[in-house]
Amino acid sequence: MAEPGVNVTDGRMRAVIERITPCVDGGRFAAKRIAGDEVVVEADCFTDGHDTIACLLRWRREGEPAWHETPMAPLGGDRWRASFVADSVGGYRYTVTAWVDHFLSWRHDFARRVEAEDLRVASLVGAGLIESAAQRAKGADCTRLKSWAAELRSVSDAQALRTLGLDEKLAAVASRYPDRRFATTCPVEYPLVVDRARARFSAWYEMFPRSASSEAGRHGTLRDCEARLPYIAGMGFDVLYLPPIHPIGRVNRKGANNALGAGPGDPGSPWAIGSAEGGHTALHPELGTLEDFRRLITRARACGIEVAMDIAFQCAPDHPYAGAHPEWFRWRPDGSVQYAENPPKKYQDIFPFEFESEDWRALWNELAGVIRFWAGEGVRIFRVDNPHTKPFPFWEWAIAEIKREYPEAIFLAEAFTRPKVMHRLAKLGFTQSYTYFAWRNAKHELIEYFTEFTQGPGREYFRPNVWPNTPDILTEYLQFGGRPAFIVRLVLAATLAASYGIYGPAFELLEAAPREPGSEEYLDSEKYQIRRWNLEAPHGLSDLIARVNRARRENPALQSDASLRFFPVDNDSLLCYAKSAAKAENLVVTVVNLDPHHVQSGWVELDLASLGIDAHTSYQMHDLLSGARFLWSGPRNFVQLDPQRAPAHVFALRRKVRTERNFDYFL
Amino acid sequence: MAEPGVNVTDGRMRAVIERITPCVDGGRFAAKRIAGDEVVVEADCFTDGHDTIACLLRWRREGEPAWHETPMAPLGGDRWRASFVADSVGGYRYTVTAWVDHFLSWRHDFARRVEAEDLRVASLVGAGLIESAAQRAKGADCTRLKSWAAELRSVSDAQALRTLGLDEKLAAVASRYPDRRFATTCPVEYPLVVDRARARFSAWYEMFPRSASSEAGRHGTLRDCEARLPYIAGMGFDVLYLPPIHPIGRVNRKGANNALGAGPGDPGSPWAIGSAEGGHTALHPELGTLEDFRRLITRARACGIEVAMDIAFQCAPDHPYAGAHPEWFRWRPDGSVQYAENPPKKYQDIFPFEFESEDWRALWNELAGVIRFWAGEGVRIFRVDNPHTKPFPFWEWAIAEIKREYPEAIFLAEAFTRPKVMHRLAKLGFTQSYTYFAWRNAKHELIEYFTEFTQGPGREYFRPNVWPNTPDILTEYLQFGGRPAFIVRLVLAATLAASYGIYGPAFELLEAAPREPGSEEYLDSEKYQIRRWNLEAPHGLSDLIARVNRARRENPALQSDASLRFFPVDNDSLLCYAKSAAKAENLVVTVVNLDPHHVQSGWVELDLASLGIDAHTSYQMHDLLSGARFLWSGPRNFVQLDPQRAPAHVFALRRKVRTERNFDYFL
Repeated sequence: MAEPGVNVTDGRMRAVIERITPCVDGGRFAAKRIAGDEVVVEADCFTDGHDTIACLLRWRREGEPAWHETPMAPLGGDRWRASFVADSVGGYRYTVTAWVDHFLSWRHDFARRVEAEDLRVASLVGAGLIESAAQRAKGADCTRLKSWAAELRSVSDAQALRTLGLDEKLAAVASRYPDRRFATTCPVEYPLVVDRARARFSAWYEMFPRSASSEAGRHGTLRDCEARLPYIAGMGFDVLYLPPIHPIGRVNRKGANNALGAGPGDPGSPWAIGSAEGGHTALHPELGTLEDFRRLITRARACGIEVAMDIAFQCAPDHPYAGAHPEWFRWRPDGSVQYAENPPKKYQDIFPFEFESEDWRALWNELAGVIRFWAGEGVRIFRVDNPHTKPFPFWEWAIAEIKREYPEAIFLAEAFTRPKVMHRLAKLGFTQSYTYFAWRNAKHELIEYFTEFTQGPGREYFRPNVWPNTPDILTEYLQFGGRPAFIVRLVLAATLAASYGIYGPAFELLEAAPREPGSEEYLDSEKYQIRRWNLEAPHGLSDLIARVNRARRENPALQSDASLRFFPVDNDSLLCYAKSAAKAENLVVTVVNLDPHHVQSGWVELDLASLGIDAHTSYQMHDLLSGARFLWSGPRNFVQLDPQRAPAHVFALRRKVRTERNFDYFL
Repeated sequence: MAEPGVNVTDGRMRAVIERITPCVDGGRFAAKRIAGDEVVVEADCFTDGHDTIACLLRWRREGEPAWHETPMAPLGGDRWRASFVADSVGGYRYTVTAWVDHFLSWRHDFARRVEAEDLRVASLVGAGLIESAAQRAKGADCTRLKSWAAELRSVSDAQALRTLGLDEKLAAVASRYPDRRFATTCPVEYPLVVDRARARFSAWYEMFPRSASSEAGRHGTLRDCEARLPYIAGMGFDVLYLPPIHPIGRVNRKGANNALGAGPGDPGSPWAIGSAEGGHTALHPELGTLEDFRRLITRARACGIEVAMDIAFQCAPDHPYAGAHPEWFRWRPDGSVQYAENPPKKYQDIFPFEFESEDWRALWNELAGVIRFWAGEGVRIFRVDNPHTKPFPFWEWAIAEIKREYPEAIFLAEAFTRPKVMHRLAKLGFTQSYTYFAWRNAKHELIEYFTEFTQGPGREYFRPNVWPNTPDILTEYLQFGGRPAFIVRLVLAATLAASYGIYGPAFELLEAAPREPGSEEYLDSEKYQIRRWNLEAPHGLSDLIARVNRARRENPALQSDASLRFFPVDNDSLLCYAKSAAKAENLVVTVVNLDPHHVQSGWVELDLASLGIDAHTSYQMHDLLSGARFLWSGPRNFVQLDPQRAPAHVFALRRKVRTERNFDYFL
């Protein structure tokens, strides 16, 4: 028989800690929060027998040597809770420690004793425990505890002993000096990543700089983008995402509408990166200079806009890497480099990197260096193209490296692939993730998908960034639904998700022509040619977009996702949901007619209790899109939405306060 | 910037493994199975990009140096599955390994190529991969692979190349020699405990040996227990559990009905263990000798019965330990040893051990030695009294120690305490667990509780052993429900749970008088006095119990819990559920009238598809209690149960086979 205590530090460590939350894959990955968030940590803690335990939440910033400690409070059912405020951006760690507290156990028992002799003997036991607490205490506390113990030893009247033993103030002093020799500490130090607010709440606008020229026939420039900033800021966006702005390859360049051969005037796809003019750290000469880029970033910042860079780790055949680092590509037996393909489809204008290269370490270093270069130029948001076609360990390392230097960096994963792959990318460090939102159009699909986001395990690490369109995605809903469809998808994106984006000006100008029937590609896609957009077109959505984004900025409820709840409507074309913030002080209820063709009406049934509304008072529904105000009462209210007039209500729900003179809409 | 690959073994290890099941607390504890079980293991496995991966389940017996490997098959959605048969009792480990398989990836791509030149270049790529597989192969396989590669290099006709490249038999050979240099292996080696069949399927009978005498006024003996064996075996029980059979303390001995002072004739509580005659490894002299005990074990085994020992780690004040090891007890300031108490209740006849003793190692050793002593005498089943009042680390260590020597040992945890404490005990090694069954009487309570057992996380490690009564528990349902109540609780216990037990002869003789109104204690409890039972009483349930236990033995469906499903009945007093085994070849449907006072009837609605029954054929319901046979048809059928006649049906559901001549009930 083996010695007792093999694999046991000390048999007297009797407290048990289980099921700490938040927890992503047992602590393998970090949960995510925003600076200023209250981080609520819970755990199951208990011990054998009837003894009382004490539990502490321990937390620290990554790299700090010492733990902060916060007492945890019991919730019942052996669940304990405490929280801390993660006040700055960066990495944190937390764990839980617990021990059998003999002083607290004694006090619990003492309170239930009745017989005089019992009380006397128990007082002596307590005196001993208090004396050892005194040994751990200093100064005045030590003195107070010593004299408390002495009293417990000397008083003989049972009733006086009882009162003395249960003294609350003295108990609080003794509790501050527990005997933690046999404390159990969970060996996992759970990681937490704390981002800045924009990681959770952001409105993205994607735009091709080369189409930003104000003169017909001239290649757009970064200076043109600068001129476009007031327009974008006017709509209320805070991230301007530019597709790659690097030199574009000439070898195997694609023509308009993805034609195999490019004509002399064809600009090629910006994602076919690299040419004699340079690679991933160079700028496409026709767009401007690095100086122009720095200016754009500065001017954008002045408009409240951050410029997001596209990180697309692939090369045109004439990228400088192809000559300098043949070992970073896969070679075919015929002596050519393997281009990207998904048989029978071929992408001859793009060479993927060979991540199984013997020289993978140098490749990793070089690619991280690309991100670092642009971070050095002031870029803090990176939209990563197809991260799921590069190894997961690379991203985990590279993102950690960049965030160590630039903890405020934000990475958006453009991975339209299988769910578990998308979740893995979010877990290993991507800040935000593209989603299947574009293809979720029916009521039950939207409810299921967004409930998964906000209540599934991904809620701790997967931050959806939802897009009604992208340069690759013109959905059939938009193709056939007309202007109401664009409004519906805009409102859904902006109110279901705290982060969303549109590809403009195609979106606000209602561009809806596909390359061919059944295709989700745009006709005359900007991916392969320069387009000119008439931003003054009268049917455009820029005013509505501005209203939607203002509603988002003015209502904290729309700035995070965790509070999302759906409510029943007796019509499958009507979707109703609410978000709240600041302990339900701010409440937004959205009702959308998902049918872009017909007027739909129905009875909305709010769960008033969950919204903190008295069932017997009326409340005001203030439509932030139209400005209209409705007085509702009780849980069931009627809604009718005409897609041609207004396919959606975004209501700020305003409660009555005290009397009719104090309605907040009287103010 | 840190070197790439810090914390990364090799950047080329691209496969990812997540969410392996079964999994108890991330691998901290073992899942449980029975020898002969097919252990199904699943995992999420995937990689970046479009490459194909291969996955293996790795498993071995604890202590075996080499892993067995079984290829995993994809289930879709990046989920993979394989299984192995755990053919013997003991510990196992399993984990998963996965890698990007370049040969399989190549083959997948090759099948989608159409152009001749493409096929030719791709054949050369394939030839290279097959040549490296050949280097890993031996003998005939090596030769076949080499010549396959040579052919791929020499054939020029595109169609012939296509056929050659996709040759299935050769692909199977190549797949046997994968390049596993960059394989990922999950670092957790998940533990599995494999028990013998009785750990999952057992019928327990608890009995006080001192009441087993056939003559009035004589103290029962182990020899009397021997004489009782045919009676117990006749009812179909396979475990005979005896309350402690050790010397009983004389100091502070309790009298009848828990009276504070014992009279001269009072035998005391068997749980007040130890006296001048000895302690936990001695036998109470009035029960007999160690020789008698060995005989009882042997005779019981001949009747198909195992004797289960009570392990109650506590001492009477006159236990030899009290004198020999004062350091194992807690001393009070008045110089006395702390007896068990839960203020204001006092148990002066019992000293608990002080597990926070400086000498805890010696105490652990001594207590494990007690179990080992009785294991050495042939006992393989231990019912552990109040394990939740001793430290968890002690049990985890002690059970592992005993099972290392006696892997067939079974431990039943008698912990009636909070759910998480009970689950912890099951996780750390207890084979079976007492439950709250006695207090689950309403339909919704039973459905919720047993659904939690069979579908909650506990299904991997918590094996319920359910008891309608114990010497401590005479429920109000039994006190007031009369004979029907006893039958209802018996049938529920025996058919809802694969392991159950009764405390007899109190149960089969319908003993229902409480010590006082509102108490769950028996009047004149055997815990404190000797009782005589008239086993011939005409109203006894022994015949019915025999029928129930025979149904359990003859129907594998009733021998495990995982298949349990509940079905709707339109009457809240009727509960209907099914269990199945052997791929639904054996099916048992139970319908119970939970109301012991009134006839209840209703429509039972079976989910025929889940039972594998054609909706359009009739099927036979053979009541294993009454012998009656009913022909049912379709999902909805009427049931009426009169508690005075038969409060329950336990139906074997028998399907029609081919024609009416082949009904299995024709045979």
